[in-house]
Amino acid sequence: DLYDQGYFGRPRGQGLELSLVEAAYLLDRSRIGVSLDGKELDFKAFFQLASSLEKGFEFRYVVYKDLRERGYYVQPGRPDFRVYPRGGHPGESPAEFYVLVISERMPLPLKELIEPVRIAGQMRKKLMMAIVDEESDITFYEAKEKDMSGSMADDEQGGMATLLEDRVVLWDADASRRLHEHGFYGKPVGERLQLSLVESAYLLERGLIQLVDRSGTSIDRRGFMARALQIEDGFDLKYRVYKDLRDRKLVVKTGFKFGTHFRVYKHVAGLQKVPHSEYLVHTVPEDHVFFPPVLSRAVRLAHSVRKQMVFAYPDGDVRYLEIRRLKP
Amino acid sequence: DLYDQGYFGRPRGQGLELSLVEAAYLLDRSRIGVSLDGKELDFKAFFQLASSLEKGFEFRYVVYKDLRERGYYVQPGRPDFRVYPRGGHPGESPAEFYVLVISERMPLPLKELIEPVRIAGQMRKKLMMAIVDEESDITFYEAKEKDMSGSMADDEQGGMATLLEDRVVLWDADASRRLHEHGFYGKPVGERLQLSLVESAYLLERGLIQLVDRSGTSIDRRGFMARALQIEDGFDLKYRVYKDLRDRKLVVKTGFKFGTHFRVYKHVAGLQKVPHSEYLVHTVPEDHVFFPPVLSRAVRLAHSVRKQMVFAYPDGDVRYLEIRRLKP
Repeated sequence: DLYDQGYFGRPRGQGLELSLVEAAYLLDRSRIGVSLDGKELDFKAFFQLASSLEKGFEFRYVVYKDLRERGYYVQPGRPDFRVYPRGGHPGESPAEFYVLVISERMPLPLKELIEPVRIAGQMRKKLMMAIVDEESDITFYEAKEKDMSGSMADDEQGGMATLLEDRVVLWDADASRRLHEHGFYGKPVGERLQLSLVESAYLLERGLIQLVDRSGTSIDRRGFMARALQIEDGFDLKYRVYKDLRDRKLVVKTGFKFGTHFRVYKHVAGLQKVPHSEYLVHTVPEDHVFFPPVLSRAVRLAHSVRKQMVFAYPDGDVRYLEIRRLKP
Repeated sequence: DLYDQGYFGRPRGQGLELSLVEAAYLLDRSRIGVSLDGKELDFKAFFQLASSLEKGFEFRYVVYKDLRERGYYVQPGRPDFRVYPRGGHPGESPAEFYVLVISERMPLPLKELIEPVRIAGQMRKKLMMAIVDEESDITFYEAKEKDMSGSMADDEQGGMATLLEDRVVLWDADASRRLHEHGFYGKPVGERLQLSLVESAYLLERGLIQLVDRSGTSIDRRGFMARALQIEDGFDLKYRVYKDLRDRKLVVKTGFKFGTHFRVYKHVAGLQKVPHSEYLVHTVPEDHVFFPPVLSRAVRLAHSVRKQMVFAYPDGDVRYLEIRRLKP
């Protein structure tokens, strides 16, 4: 009966097997009674008991209740729940979301997020992250693998540049104009061009600039990478992502004003009207651990400036994980 | 002459003493020539030399040039520059800003920020932070001490609550309504109220609730603090700020959706129309080190939701530092 009316639980022979979360929900609505050792349990007693039996019960209950009250059919399943599309239900339509319930206080290793994202992708489902904050409010996110690509044409030749304290100056006015107008490299300061470390490393690797230090001594790619790593911790990983994005024909500039590593454009046609960048990309190592408040801030900020929030991480190649807010 | 026309340098006898930054600026505009050992230096040669002589020269040059080109009179001084108000100049009007030049890549210890903020406050100046990103773009911020206060009336009595896994439930419907409607405590779940750990600690300390664990054993304030510290690292510091804000008659709720510890209201009159919160407050320890990109993200997000970004830190009492974007 409960199964037919709301797809609660899983039919087992003549009976119905309910998870603790489902039972608490039905008990709170007086649809079932629960007894233990012949004694009737009220909601308070059952809730206290369930929360001591099952780790994370309180979070899952909050999320289950919320999704049910929004009119979704929800069934227990991996990682925590399956949610059916509006108008659909178990047995008739496939699930739309796999739901991962996360506490605001729980560190979330990247590795533990990648696996459910891949499985959901393979099963053609969406992965919904439901983050429960300390006031039991829920923020929903979708996490998915992202294929990044742009449509910039090939880069042009630069010239001779000098490495100063922690940035590079290209002195030739023509070369400066060419690199800036074409690939949106650097920042013009008068007729000169200031290049960032990642830009310089990339142009050097592609043979598009030559580099000397303040004493006029030539610096090759390896020497530059070593210097850059002294100036900036983690430069190698950041550069690897920069290079991957540029190789994918995207335009990549610093994301400092947004608190991320890069802002990324699919295409910059001319500098008279530079378009809005489409993505904010933040580089994280494979063993990165997200903290939900930090994740929440990054996604919120990206959306407030109408960009997509993408995390880049190394896994053989560079891979991209987009995280966006869901409003189910 | 240069002094009279633009307040460059400091007159010394018949001459004028210029800082390296001022000299580079004037050289680039062909207002002066510079010679070393009888040999004339061009801008490139002078810039390379100055950048090897003076740490941070490149950043200071970028900021000096930008402020000059915006039409401000700028003089070298502590911490880096003094900026005069529009229409004012050295000798006539007092400086408006003390400028601290910061590289995006430079960790910024809270302690190194507090001192210039205090000095600026004592001298009735504003402290301008000029953060230079890796593309030599500048973002300007003002940092100042903030006196936080609200106008909520005294709190009401609650009742008996239970500590579950990591949150607290108040079961009594009347007490739940009272606490929620009056001080905007907790989140109603049905007729019950879920209280966060900081809320519970505060209500317990004020004697407004009593607390038991799942087995019915009473928990006192000290026992609760110990449990809360197990659940959440740094709970003691966070609670100290929460308590200070509540004692200042402010309403304090989680700032999770904004990636901060708290969102804070000066006054919540009724729950029919909860106002926008005025502040985002993030708690940091005294030995905290800011990273400019993280700071940039926090301030940007706060502004995008029309709130003020405030950092709270312990220093005997709890002190508050507001950081906001400046557009000079």
